[in-house]
Amino acid sequence: DHDEKFYILNSATIIQYIKKHSSLASKLGSPESDWKVQEVGDGNLNFVYIVEGTAASFVLKQAVPYVRCVGESWPMTPDRAYFEAITLKKHGALCPQHVPEIYHFDRTMSAIVMQYLEPPHIILRKGFIKGIYYPCLAEHMSEYMARTLFFTSLLAISTTTHRSAVAEFCGNVQLCRLTEQVIFTEPYMESSNNRWTSPQLDEDVRALRDDEILKVEVAGLKAKFCENSQALIHGDLHTGSVMVTLSSTKVIDPEFAFYGPIGFDVGAFLGNLLLAYFSQDGHADEHNDRQEYKKWLLATIEETWNKFSCKFLALWTSNWDLSAGDAFHPDVYRSSTVRIAAQEYFMKGIFADSLGFAAAKMIRRIVGIAHVEDLESIKNPDLRAKCERKALHAAKKLMKARMSVLSINQALELINSELS
Amino acid sequence: DHDEKFYILNSATIIQYIKKHSSLASKLGSPESDWKVQEVGDGNLNFVYIVEGTAASFVLKQAVPYVRCVGESWPMTPDRAYFEAITLKKHGALCPQHVPEIYHFDRTMSAIVMQYLEPPHIILRKGFIKGIYYPCLAEHMSEYMARTLFFTSLLAISTTTHRSAVAEFCGNVQLCRLTEQVIFTEPYMESSNNRWTSPQLDEDVRALRDDEILKVEVAGLKAKFCENSQALIHGDLHTGSVMVTLSSTKVIDPEFAFYGPIGFDVGAFLGNLLLAYFSQDGHADEHNDRQEYKKWLLATIEETWNKFSCKFLALWTSNWDLSAGDAFHPDVYRSSTVRIAAQEYFMKGIFADSLGFAAAKMIRRIVGIAHVEDLESIKNPDLRAKCERKALHAAKKLMKARMSVLSINQALELINSELS
Ligand SMILES: Nc1ncnc2c1ncn2[C@@H]1O[C@H](COP(=O)(O)OP(=O)(O)O)[C@@H](O)[C@H]1O
Ligand SMILES: Nc1ncnc2c1ncn2[C@@H]1O[C@H](COP(=O)(O)OP(=O)(O)O)[C@@H](O)[C@H]1O
Ligand SMILES: [Mg+2]
Ligand SMILES: [Mg+2]
Ligand SMILES: [Mg+2]
Ligand SMILES: [Mg+2]
Ligand SMILES: [Mg+2]
Repeated sequence: DHDEKFYILNSATIIQYIKKHSSLASKLGSPESDWKVQEVGDGNLNFVYIVEGTAASFVLKQAVPYVRCVGESWPMTPDRAYFEAITLKKHGALCPQHVPEIYHFDRTMSAIVMQYLEPPHIILRKGFIKGIYYPCLAEHMSEYMARTLFFTSLLAISTTTHRSAVAEFCGNVQLCRLTEQVIFTEPYMESSNNRWTSPQLDEDVRALRDDEILKVEVAGLKAKFCENSQALIHGDLHTGSVMVTLSSTKVIDPEFAFYGPIGFDVGAFLGNLLLAYFSQDGHADEHNDRQEYKKWLLATIEETWNKFSCKFLALWTSNWDLSAGDAFHPDVYRSSTVRIAAQEYFMKGIFADSLGFAAAKMIRRIVGIAHVEDLESIKNPDLRAKCERKALHAAKKLMKARMSVLSINQALELINSELS
Repeated sequence: DHDEKFYILNSATIIQYIKKHSSLASKLGSPESDWKVQEVGDGNLNFVYIVEGTAASFVLKQAVPYVRCVGESWPMTPDRAYFEAITLKKHGALCPQHVPEIYHFDRTMSAIVMQYLEPPHIILRKGFIKGIYYPCLAEHMSEYMARTLFFTSLLAISTTTHRSAVAEFCGNVQLCRLTEQVIFTEPYMESSNNRWTSPQLDEDVRALRDDEILKVEVAGLKAKFCENSQALIHGDLHTGSVMVTLSSTKVIDPEFAFYGPIGFDVGAFLGNLLLAYFSQDGHADEHNDRQEYKKWLLATIEETWNKFSCKFLALWTSNWDLSAGDAFHPDVYRSSTVRIAAQEYFMKGIFADSLGFAAAKMIRRIVGIAHVEDLESIKNPDLRAKCERKALHAAKKLMKARMSVLSINQALELINSELS
């Protein structure tokens, strides 16, 4: 590429960078003096610039050699941009309608240039805080998850392709380790990284750390995360990684991607829907008690799982005889009864994993290093703690019941029983 | 190295090869004219030469670019020797008393020079056929499995080390695929590779292929094999990969090694002990009814599992606070009750996996491509079929009950109920 060495871009040097890459420059359109650059990164790790030209706009995202929200004291390889770029390309090829288009990737600079998701696109989490209904959300997210996860699993690829891709994504180990630390470890111990609404939740946090049944479950989930290379997962599929309008849904930011358990993506999304749900009482006011919205969120959780499960199974069923995937040889699994039994067994495992990972994601957002705006934006600490406590207890229940719960409905009933 | 290009060695060219490698030549001792070379490979894949000098002897094993017992029509990368060599070194460092020493490895030539396991060392399987008691076998094999599997798992290593090792062993995909094909796939379908004692077992084979509950379990085990990188496993730990005397036990031939499920190694060994057990009636004669020997084999299975479990747990317990492994952070798992609960949960999983893989290994040796001498050496086909049928039915029971069986004793009771 044009750049020989990595350097951290800023709004001024970005212009120079684009001029050196003629395809980007011509995409923006002349005159160059009219280009506008604006840093909009609100994430934890990277810098994101919107670059507006006369003919077009795009987003440039650059990873820096540290965790942005902490600073240089927490180093982190900028090569995470590579894994983000190749995953955007792979997932984009499998589900173009829900992944921003990539225009340019520069590994030396850890810079990705991609489609600008223009207003009215907003981050889904912000839409939930505002109480906006997204009628296509479950349909779109179930489509994205079903397609990206099915087609990168051994249901669709050979073990040759799989082991070679697994090996490549082992290179994203630093990001995996970050997840291990902040999701599966620190929430369950004393750590200066942790924080919670204190003193309101002090007792709950103590109980969490003393909950031995829960911690055994968490160990099982952590082992799955570290050892189970089921599919190319997004790896950070919370509601801050989804941008939406009423009719469009785009998944961004897969820098944590690797071959991991399918339930980690599904659970991340469902767990964040639950966090949105539990935060609603904190956003109720005289104009809107959020009761209808809460029902819609629960219905969306149910619809997302059920549609994901149906779409995933439909892809599987229509691919049985193509022999593309090595998991199920068509000559062994020819009868429809054995196929259905195998599919049920498989989906039961994905479901239990999804509930467990959803719970782990909820817990860490209440007692760990990184919180969510859904709850953080509730200014009254007593009210916030009340929402957080409900979410925490629901998550604990979910994690412990994950192997015995039989349907998403039953899981939501369990959570509702928690509310009463 | 000295060799620029791979070529297939033979008894004559081996002498030239050794002369070019002075450390090997000086190990054998002069005069070179007294060196003796003998090909002894009885395995399926490779060539094994015993080289005797005046001062010392060693074994030279060469992998060729195909499956030896089939021929050039079944190509197979000779780079399997690389994975065998690095595994011998790793496992040898962890458990030197049960792994032959490596003297030399030449990746270009796919040649490993290692310690000659002199007579009275014989292949364990052959000892079982003769009815020889090995009083240290369970002790030694449990030691080998506990140490090699514990110290390559996330109980002992960081996720950084683990993902980098996983990535490297993804390169051994061709050997993994061979296992997938001959163990988890072909036995359950029509394939020209399959054979069985016919017509005696025709009906049993038909029933096996129609056993839908069994095939769903097999799919679960295959997924674990393909996706679960728990530890650096030997990958082919049958009783033909173990050489023994009454007091010595050495594990050879880890060319199928990769990061896979711990239960695949434990199950391979236990399953082959069960095959030895079920074959004994076919070796009974007027001098020895083999009844005592069968009891010893069952006792050895029990002792192997129990000692493996105890040793593995003891290693774990003594390593809790070293923080070398990333699976369990000492600050999260500080109380002894949570530690014990976590260990029980973990060992329960390993046990269920081991029973399942043991059963899969038994089944494939009766109806698949590669059979075992324990059964093949029973000349009377009716008698052989009787032994094989019992083994097959026991394996099917074991596979289906693997999640609910609580102890090795209970597993053996299940099998004994099969016998009566
Ligand atoms: N393609 C895009 N179009 C519009 N806005 C984007 C785009 N990508 C990122 N953003 C904005 O930048 C923010 C941070 O991006 P993200 O990829 O999540 O970075 P990080 O990895 O630091 O979390 C997003 O929350 C969103 O507001
Ligand atoms: N180190 C050794 N010492 C003595 N004999 C050995 C040694 N290694 C292998 N052999 C003999 O060679 C045979 C084949 O070796 P093995 O490594 O199992 O090859 P393969 O991979 O072809 O199965 C063994 O069954 C054993 O008889
Ligand atoms: Mg982000
Ligand atoms: Mg990110
Ligand atoms: Mg062998
Ligand atoms: Mg071999
Ligand atoms: Mg540790």
